[in-house]
Amino acid sequence: ALAAIRAVTQAPATPPQVLWLNVSGLADAQLLKKIGEALTLHPLAMEDVVSLRQRPRVDNYDSHLYIPLKILQQDDNALTFNQLSIFLLNNLVVTFQEQTGDVLDAVRLRIRHGSGRIRQMGADYLMYSIIDTVIDNYFPCLEQINDLMEALEEKIIRNQAHKDSIEYIHRLKRDIQEVRRAIWPLRDAIGALYRDELPNVSKAIRPFLRDCQDHAILLFDSIENCREFANSLMDIYLSTLSNRMNEIMKVLTIISTIFIPLTFIAGIYGMNFATMPELQWRWGYATCLALMAICAAVMIGLFKHVGWLDFKQKTTITRK
Amino acid sequence: ALAAIRAVTQAPATPPQVLWLNVSGLADAQLLKKIGEALTLHPLAMEDVVSLRQRPRVDNYDSHLYIPLKILQQDDNALTFNQLSIFLLNNLVVTFQEQTGDVLDAVRLRIRHGSGRIRQMGADYLMYSIIDTVIDNYFPCLEQINDLMEALEEKIIRNQAHKDSIEYIHRLKRDIQEVRRAIWPLRDAIGALYRDELPNVSKAIRPFLRDCQDHAILLFDSIENCREFANSLMDIYLSTLSNRMNEIMKVLTIISTIFIPLTFIAGIYGMNFATMPELQWRWGYATCLALMAICAAVMIGLFKHVGWLDFKQKTTITRK
Amino acid sequence: ALAAIRAVTQAPATPPQVLWLNVSGLADAQLLKKIGEALTLHPLAMEDVVSLRQRPRVDNYDSHLYIPLKILQQDDNALTFNQLSIFLLNNLVVTFQEQTGDVLDAVRLRIRHGSGRIRQMGADYLMYSIIDTVIDNYFPCLEQINDLMEALEEKIIRNQAHKDSIEYIHRLKRDIQEVRRAIWPLRDAIGALYRDELPNVSKAIRPFLRDCQDHAILLFDSIENCREFANSLMDIYLSTLSNRMNEIMKVLTIISTIFIPLTFIAGIYGMNFATMPELQWRWGYATCLALMAICAAVMIGLFKHVGWLDFKQKTTITRK
Amino acid sequence: ALAAIRAVTQAPATPPQVLWLNVSGLADAQLLKKIGEALTLHPLAMEDVVSLRQRPRVDNYDSHLYIPLKILQQDDNALTFNQLSIFLLNNLVVTFQEQTGDVLDAVRLRIRHGSGRIRQMGADYLMYSIIDTVIDNYFPCLEQINDLMEALEEKIIRNQAHKDSIEYIHRLKRDIQEVRRAIWPLRDAIGALYRDELPNVSKAIRPFLRDCQDHAILLFDSIENCREFANSLMDIYLSTLSNRMNEIMKVLTIISTIFIPLTFIAGIYGMNFATMPELQWRWGYATCLALMAICAAVMIGLFKHVGWLDFKQKTTITRK
Amino acid sequence: ALAAIRAVTQAPATPPQVLWLNVSGLADAQLLKKIGEALTLHPLAMEDVVSLRQRPRVDNYDSHLYIPLKILQQDDNALTFNQLSIFLLNNLVVTFQEQTGDVLDAVRLRIRHGSGRIRQMGADYLMYSIIDTVIDNYFPCLEQINDLMEALEEKIIRNQAHKDSIEYIHRLKRDIQEVRRAIWPLRDAIGALYRDELPNVSKAIRPFLRDCQDHAILLFDSIENCREFANSLMDIYLSTLSNRMNEIMKVLTIISTIFIPLTFIAGIYGMNFATMPELQWRWGYATCLALMAICAAVMIGLFKHVGWLDFKQKTTITRK
Repeated sequence: ALAAIRAVTQAPATPPQVLWLNVSGLADAQLLKKIGEALTLHPLAMEDVVSLRQRPRVDNYDSHLYIPLKILQQDDNALTFNQLSIFLLNNLVVTFQEQTGDVLDAVRLRIRHGSGRIRQMGADYLMYSIIDTVIDNYFPCLEQINDLMEALEEKIIRNQAHKDSIEYIHRLKRDIQEVRRAIWPLRDAIGALYRDELPNVSKAIRPFLRDCQDHAILLFDSIENCREFANSLMDIYLSTLSNRMNEIMKVLTIISTIFIPLTFIAGIYGMNFATMPELQWRWGYATCLALMAICAAVMIGLFKHVGWLDFKQKTTITRK
Repeated sequence: ALAAIRAVTQAPATPPQVLWLNVSGLADAQLLKKIGEALTLHPLAMEDVVSLRQRPRVDNYDSHLYIPLKILQQDDNALTFNQLSIFLLNNLVVTFQEQTGDVLDAVRLRIRHGSGRIRQMGADYLMYSIIDTVIDNYFPCLEQINDLMEALEEKIIRNQAHKDSIEYIHRLKRDIQEVRRAIWPLRDAIGALYRDELPNVSKAIRPFLRDCQDHAILLFDSIENCREFANSLMDIYLSTLSNRMNEIMKVLTIISTIFIPLTFIAGIYGMNFATMPELQWRWGYATCLALMAICAAVMIGLFKHVGWLDFKQKTTITRK
Repeated sequence: ALAAIRAVTQAPATPPQVLWLNVSGLADAQLLKKIGEALTLHPLAMEDVVSLRQRPRVDNYDSHLYIPLKILQQDDNALTFNQLSIFLLNNLVVTFQEQTGDVLDAVRLRIRHGSGRIRQMGADYLMYSIIDTVIDNYFPCLEQINDLMEALEEKIIRNQAHKDSIEYIHRLKRDIQEVRRAIWPLRDAIGALYRDELPNVSKAIRPFLRDCQDHAILLFDSIENCREFANSLMDIYLSTLSNRMNEIMKVLTIISTIFIPLTFIAGIYGMNFATMPELQWRWGYATCLALMAICAAVMIGLFKHVGWLDFKQKTTITRK
Repeated sequence: ALAAIRAVTQAPATPPQVLWLNVSGLADAQLLKKIGEALTLHPLAMEDVVSLRQRPRVDNYDSHLYIPLKILQQDDNALTFNQLSIFLLNNLVVTFQEQTGDVLDAVRLRIRHGSGRIRQMGADYLMYSIIDTVIDNYFPCLEQINDLMEALEEKIIRNQAHKDSIEYIHRLKRDIQEVRRAIWPLRDAIGALYRDELPNVSKAIRPFLRDCQDHAILLFDSIENCREFANSLMDIYLSTLSNRMNEIMKVLTIISTIFIPLTFIAGIYGMNFATMPELQWRWGYATCLALMAICAAVMIGLFKHVGWLDFKQKTTITRK
Repeated sequence: ALAAIRAVTQAPATPPQVLWLNVSGLADAQLLKKIGEALTLHPLAMEDVVSLRQRPRVDNYDSHLYIPLKILQQDDNALTFNQLSIFLLNNLVVTFQEQTGDVLDAVRLRIRHGSGRIRQMGADYLMYSIIDTVIDNYFPCLEQINDLMEALEEKIIRNQAHKDSIEYIHRLKRDIQEVRRAIWPLRDAIGALYRDELPNVSKAIRPFLRDCQDHAILLFDSIENCREFANSLMDIYLSTLSNRMNEIMKVLTIISTIFIPLTFIAGIYGMNFATMPELQWRWGYATCLALMAICAAVMIGLFKHVGWLDFKQKTTITRK
């Protein structure tokens, strides 16, 4: 393979012919080193390829560009990020993938079925296609997070949310934060690609890069929106807790407040004093029960007046 | 129609004559493609016309400008955004609307009844008229959100807010957030139109664009104001909840604290000990009742002293 | 009046002679139109004069500057803003006031009693005098808001704040927000006047404009300070509520916890079992009462130990 | 004195000879006016000298610089700010102090004992010495605020904080805010001194000004740190309140929940029904007491299981 | 030693030969002064070397650069920062360490085992190596803080967090804040090294400095992430407290609400009225007990309906 690589780089540059060398897995340090040397990639960039915590950015090494990106991969339980390193040489694009994934298949498909453009244009267009594919890969994930939050919002508003919702929101927020950290520098990186005069990037590619940057900005907007949404969800969930507490307290207070005076009256006539005239009255017992009933009725009336007894109010202000 | 378009574009440019081609609905992909080719609009821009999540911005394709905008449409229950794509060519404005709406009617009216200016000036003035109309269309919506919040504020302060108010505020905040996302890039886009040297945009149009940008900034200010208002509403609503909780607890505490000692006294004289001298006293019962009354009076006096019994206080600090 | 205006503008420019034309009230559309035409003010600017939601800014129309400002007027119950539009021409200043007010009287006084400088210098100095007067007019209002908040702070700390304090703070915050919206763009506008090369603004006026901008920045600083203060007030008020709740709960808990066991003991000896030896004991009743007293004493001792019984603590950390 | 001043300014400039004219107290308007005229200081600057709400900044009046600063003075109960106005002329520094203070003594000492440098260099070095002294004067105050907060933090964590702590934090926050307002513009002002080409400021002084600006930035960092600290303190104090509330509620609930069922049982056997077989049982009373004991034991066991009975938990996660 | 230093500086510059002079401990003021004079380091910089509160930055003194940094050292209980001052001269690097530490050993190792590059390149590469080592030294600390927070998060979610967790988070936040203050200026400082034309910094070193700055930005991103995490932890912990309060209140309310009416019924039949027909009924007692049982059952049924009795709900919304 290395021989071929060497051959390629020494072949006279026939611009329309673009080569794409993709390396999956970074375990074989020897191979990486040889590729780096054969293509005279800068040693610092090759070090960064294997070090897995690179911020997305564009490094200009005069003869070539080095662009590390994060591919978002979404499992059942967690979001993972795979590092993708792109080198743009004269008529060659080299990519190193941390793990074999299916994200770049979209680019391969585009090339094979050839929408035409990708075959006519240079290596920079291939680079653009790869970056664009990586960015577009973020959108489904954001939409899913949004859907999850909307489902939870529905539950919270219907008062069916469970008490671990706060942890749930907390985890979503951490996911959002992770995605944000991957996207944020991306925006600037593509901006640099688009604005600066960089080697191997032709002027014809600029509208495409501008489009690509626009996608990145849109992505960033969406993620900021998700964050606001998550914060607002937290707020309404906490207020739901507060409301529920209010309800519980109301029930306790109503029951206590009604029965405590009644129990007190019962307590009085349970006393054993020798002379308690009421106890000997013929209608004493009945009067006592009646007194209790009146007492309870007054209490209930009062609570109704204060508005503590209607548990199902609805805000009826409507739009338009 | 296409033939006519072709004819137009090939006709010699007679500057005062400006054409406006408006396409409603984006379903007929074939038609869009043909229009794009006839007017040599950039393929990337034509792709963006049908992709409905474009940020408002100004894309300069040398021979023409591409300006995607969001038209705000307000139904009974929700805010919806329709995408409007504006192409500014030499003496031609092409607009693509996601859905047929009545927003652009205002522009048509201006043209027909002719305030004069719109007929004398170039295509850039037509473009300005369309953008201005789209922006002015946001104001009624913001005012309505503001009115809704003021109504709710009134209710909260009068303590008549229902317990789903928090969801209500939450929904208003999401609406505000949506509008904000549509307006924010708009401000920069019009700023770019006004500041940069762009093809087909004459110098004479600049004061108008500056005016238009000023409207956008004003809009953005208003939306930020709405956000602050919504946050403040949330705060006072939550504090209302807290206050109500305090009231409930006070009632519970007052009732309990008054009756618990009384009930205890009744309990004592309900005991069945063989030797309980008080029980045999002649005025035992009366003394006991008197004791209870004093006990209750002391309690009530204490609560009054602490200030728990006046439920209707008003802050009387007044603005000079 | 119009004839005079025309005469003025056609008279040869004798620099030291500066004219100030002030129009109060914007109802007479015809008059405004004629003035605009006589002085060849830009139609867009004249439209803005009557549209009352202009952001403070500086619009440069080459032959003249258009500067809309907001005059703050303070009634008993509310803050209102009147729009003041300033046009700076060669040796003429035209101002349009939304409503007749007494704010500009200060400028008139300065002219009449003539501190000298205002008569010697050009129209730009007159413009500066007007802007400076408008800005200085904001300070008393801010100071009043500050005083109101300090009075409330005093009340809250002395625990005498009423339960609608939160609405009170909320309204102050909205006032602050309103003033902030009027001041914020002002700062940039005067900055532009001072920095940019603008027609009719001489170099000699710059130190004065810089001074004026400094006042605007100071104003903005003060308003930001007010905001922080209001937020902090909200926090301490809410914590006061929390504290009060704690007090209420403590009272309830102390009373309940002391009497519940006592009542239970009374309940036991109120039972009617045939064989309850204690009931026949000679000192049974006395022992029972003693038991209750000990029980209560233990409880009170415990509460003292935990620190629930001292209601008046003071933080005594002092600033050296 | 004025004659001397006039003499000084008319004397031929012998660069190494630098004069410092310090005026303490601003009451004598006549004197100030004469000094201003004798040294041809700009009238606007002289107006600012007596107006006491100047933001720290650098005003360039071509022939001289005007630099208003705030000297921090710390009394037992409050922070006060005295205005210091510095004028930098060719070989003369004039300072106006609002009140006589001992802050500038440090500069005088430096001159008298002469660390050498201050005598060899020009008026700009004297100006730098004064500014540097004023800035260094802020550090002890910040350290004291920090110490106060750490003392309070200790108290809060040990649960010994009193209930007016929130007001205490609130006052510290206002102090911090005051200092911040004085420091914030200072940073930019010194930055302007260092970066811009200003009259009477030689290139040789730049490293010193850069050092001075660095102190200002450090100061600003510290004040921001104080703010974060104060906010965090507020949070933990409020959470302490919440925790205490939880404790109180737990005690109430435990006592109530244990005794309420027992009291109910006692109530049952206190009823006076003619036929209640248990009352006649020989071991009825004993069985009843046993039942109560079992009931209480079950309750206590349950509470232990739920973890409500251990009041002294400690988080034991330790740093490495 | 000084003689050697003098010799070195006077020796003809043989570029590949780079000298590194490291001074540990700053106690010997005399020595420091002599070194400073021998190497003609700027006196201001030498003053900063011993003053221990320098912000990381790059000071350009034309003949040499002065770069103060903070070395993070992590003990069992606290984070400490040691100041490291780097001077970059022509072919000489001088470093002053506040305390002897093992952080720079990594640089020494690199030199001795010689990865080659460090021996071939100039003094600027040595400087880069030192800065890079200092920065990389921050990462383990951040990872540890992150681990601690994840452990706490686990505990909080499993509801095993103790009630001093809030202090724990507070302390972590202060640590994070400390690290942030040290890193924040670092980012800009290295940016200045990389962007500006500085003496003794060759162009060849730029890719390395860019890499270094990228590490600093990554570090800053991580610390911001930690902050967000800590804030979110605080939120979920507080909500846990709220939830627990809800549980406690629910238990209290359920027990009270069930038993209070029953106790009331028992109280009624404990009254001593002469005529209470129910007391004489044969099945009176049984009926009464049955009534109580029904009453309790209804209550329990109601609570089940409202959902207060299921204490172990789980949110089951799952990702995909």
